Amino acid sequence: MDYNKRSSVSTVPNAAPIRVGFIGLSSFKGWAVKTHYPAILQLSSQFQITALYNPDIESALNTIQHLKLSNATAFPSLESFASSADVDMIVLSIQVAQNYDVLIPLLEYSKKNPNLKYLFVEWALACSVQQAETIYKAAAQRGLQTIISLQGRKSPYILRAKELISEGYIGDINSIEIAGNGGWYGYERPQKSPSYIFELGKGVDLVTTAFGHTIDLLQYMTGSYFSRINSMIFNNIPEQEVIDEHGVRTGQKVPKTVPDHLLFQGTLLKGNVPVSCSFKGGKPTKKFTKNLVIDIHGTKGDLKLEGDAGFAEISNLVLYYSGVRANDYPVANGQAGYDAGKEIMEVYHLRNYNAVNGNIFRLYQSIADFHYNTKQIPNLPSQFIMQGFEFEGFPTLMDALILHRLVDNVYRSNILGSTLDVTNICHYP
Amino acid sequence: MDYNKRSSVSTVPNAAPIRVGFIGLSSFKGWAVKTHYPAILQLSSQFQITALYNPDIESALNTIQHLKLSNATAFPSLESFASSADVDMIVLSIQVAQNYDVLIPLLEYSKKNPNLKYLFVEWALACSVQQAETIYKAAAQRGLQTIISLQGRKSPYILRAKELISEGYIGDINSIEIAGNGGWYGYERPQKSPSYIFELGKGVDLVTTAFGHTIDLLQYMTGSYFSRINSMIFNNIPEQEVIDEHGVRTGQKVPKTVPDHLLFQGTLLKGNVPVSCSFKGGKPTKKFTKNLVIDIHGTKGDLKLEGDAGFAEISNLVLYYSGVRANDYPVANGQAGYDAGKEIMEVYHLRNYNAVNGNIFRLYQSIADFHYNTKQIPNLPSQFIMQGFEFEGFPTLMDALILHRLVDNVYRSNILGSTLDVTNICHYP
Repeated sequence: MDYNKRSSVSTVPNAAPIRVGFIGLSSFKGWAVKTHYPAILQLSSQFQITALYNPDIESALNTIQHLKLSNATAFPSLESFASSADVDMIVLSIQVAQNYDVLIPLLEYSKKNPNLKYLFVEWALACSVQQAETIYKAAAQRGLQTIISLQGRKSPYILRAKELISEGYIGDINSIEIAGNGGWYGYERPQKSPSYIFELGKGVDLVTTAFGHTIDLLQYMTGSYFSRINSMIFNNIPEQEVIDEHGVRTGQKVPKTVPDHLLFQGTLLKGNVPVSCSFKGGKPTKKFTKNLVIDIHGTKGDLKLEGDAGFAEISNLVLYYSGVRANDYPVANGQAGYDAGKEIMEVYHLRNYNAVNGNIFRLYQSIADFHYNTKQIPNLPSQFIMQGFEFEGFPTLMDALILHRLVDNVYRSNILGSTLDVTNICHYP
Repeated sequence: MDYNKRSSVSTVPNAAPIRVGFIGLSSFKGWAVKTHYPAILQLSSQFQITALYNPDIESALNTIQHLKLSNATAFPSLESFASSADVDMIVLSIQVAQNYDVLIPLLEYSKKNPNLKYLFVEWALACSVQQAETIYKAAAQRGLQTIISLQGRKSPYILRAKELISEGYIGDINSIEIAGNGGWYGYERPQKSPSYIFELGKGVDLVTTAFGHTIDLLQYMTGSYFSRINSMIFNNIPEQEVIDEHGVRTGQKVPKTVPDHLLFQGTLLKGNVPVSCSFKGGKPTKKFTKNLVIDIHGTKGDLKLEGDAGFAEISNLVLYYSGVRANDYPVANGQAGYDAGKEIMEVYHLRNYNAVNGNIFRLYQSIADFHYNTKQIPNLPSQFIMQGFEFEGFPTLMDALILHRLVDNVYRSNILGSTLDVTNICHYP
């Protein structure tokens, strides 16, 4: 498990930390303080928050105080934040629907900061493939090394599965089935849920988020994009019942425009592999199956990934493997034989792994590994356009753009009632 | 479980048995002697074989002798067989590819037999929807009550699931996933397998047979046809390796033209329910899942059907149910309360049920129930065109024709690369 081994980043002595300018970090609520912040805190020799942007300066100052960010300056102006030379990496973690309007001017203003090297944006990057492409191009022209939070690629389960597949432990893949259940697009809406996650076009929905993350992981594990896809998208629950914090119905009903079910089927480019996929909202009553199941069948074995929640990128998973040993290893006790072809089985589960934090933490770790060249990879480029299906590195805005094109085709296939050829979406713009 | 209760047909006294003229019964090999024959033997007061058609008269006489069919006459001529007034029901159990050429003249000749009332044909009836329609019309014009061997509709598991669904035990269905694995379309071909089952157009293939039976059962259980469908059909194994009776490779390779994988997704007319379906050949290495899994999710509960083989109509299954009690039943011990809404769970499995025989046996039983009106259904019609989604009765050539139209659209969707509207295929010709 070479690719799963602990990063050696903490052993780099006396290196200057990467200075982080953060947009969207609040000590009071939200994703960033739960995930990015603990990752940065744990990697304090490698990352240091030096700037916070918030039009509400009081809020930024409060966050600095509460989180004891002694090296951070609060900026109420995007221009001054983006121009500050004390920032090596900008992290953007706000509502997806606002990304475009922040990023385009940000990238322009940032030309005044000669030290800026990294731009880290949350998936889904933008609300449409057109916006995503414009952002991608602006960041490329600005010469930044980009990072997208398709953090499931750093999940130990996904990497272990990818390793087993790439080393031939299940032979040739011949069939894949995925079923996911994300309860939050269902019959009931918790009172405290923000309404934008139920409005189509806000960049957060079953197709873009739940399916997007998961299908990215499938492509990453198998090392293949799709050649043909078909989809059917449903909004069978156009009205949700509001429930209070105790799960009791309030009697209030609210409209929902995002889909609650996606049927997707397609063919992987590599090996013409059939992939069947059903993603649903609704009530996860599922008593006889987990909320996330990914079955990958091969000519020599099977892989199964299971999770309690339908979101592969933030769930702690269990990986089951059954098949034959692909490589020759010397057998123990001085025997001369080798055990290639032997039937083996493996259950891989880290009982206390917090996937919500853990995958983001490992993404930060891989940024540090890249920055300090900790793994001493020969001929490491100073920049790379996309991670693609490499074990090392991290997903970039190009990876995000390719995924956006797939999501766009999923929506188009449903509208057109056609099976679409998507062979070309993995090419550069 | 009203619909699952034992037929009371054996209590009918002194009724004349239905006289059966059989095409395709051989004492030496084949499906008929393993399934139809024991059913008729067990129901000997209701059915009696009186005629066998076989152009090879010696073979027919041998079968009569070996099976001790003391009332049967051997006919080497189709015309004399079809004209014989000693036959009330003709059963056709031969290779599907030969059905059309036998049935069309048979139905014409049979006009000389005033007693003929029933025609029982094996699924898939014919090799194409056009042939199926011609046969359907000829049988309808001849005025026969037809039966098709979609015998899974008589499976106790399917009927129990249908009952639970129709009585509201899982609420409204909101999602269905099906995965089936039929090993025989895979990498290896047993030496003794007839080659016609690997040739496209012979009426026996993954789509027509494995998927056809299973999707018929899904429609039957849910009480709904499809409105939209999409499919992708694969022949990823165009060449098979021949294995001998010990499973050892002979080194011989043979071409295969039938598909080895079907991706199917669609929407049920009733409730706009998304259905995801993956049917595969290949090696059933599947360690972490059964070869047949049907998951039916509802707003109030879940049903799961599992089988060891990917063929729902001939597999002994296990039915899992979890949900809430739909109806009010008086609670035991004289309590005044009722227990509607109570959470319940059920595992339904008949350990010694032989599904290969059993479902065919129950199909014969239902023919007898109809013929003798054993269940004393008021206003029983003397004939019916189709079973549709009724519990009672049995599937007919009209049910078969509708299923053929679906299979035809599955093949067309793949060729056209389109999602197809199939709302109208359940209508009469």
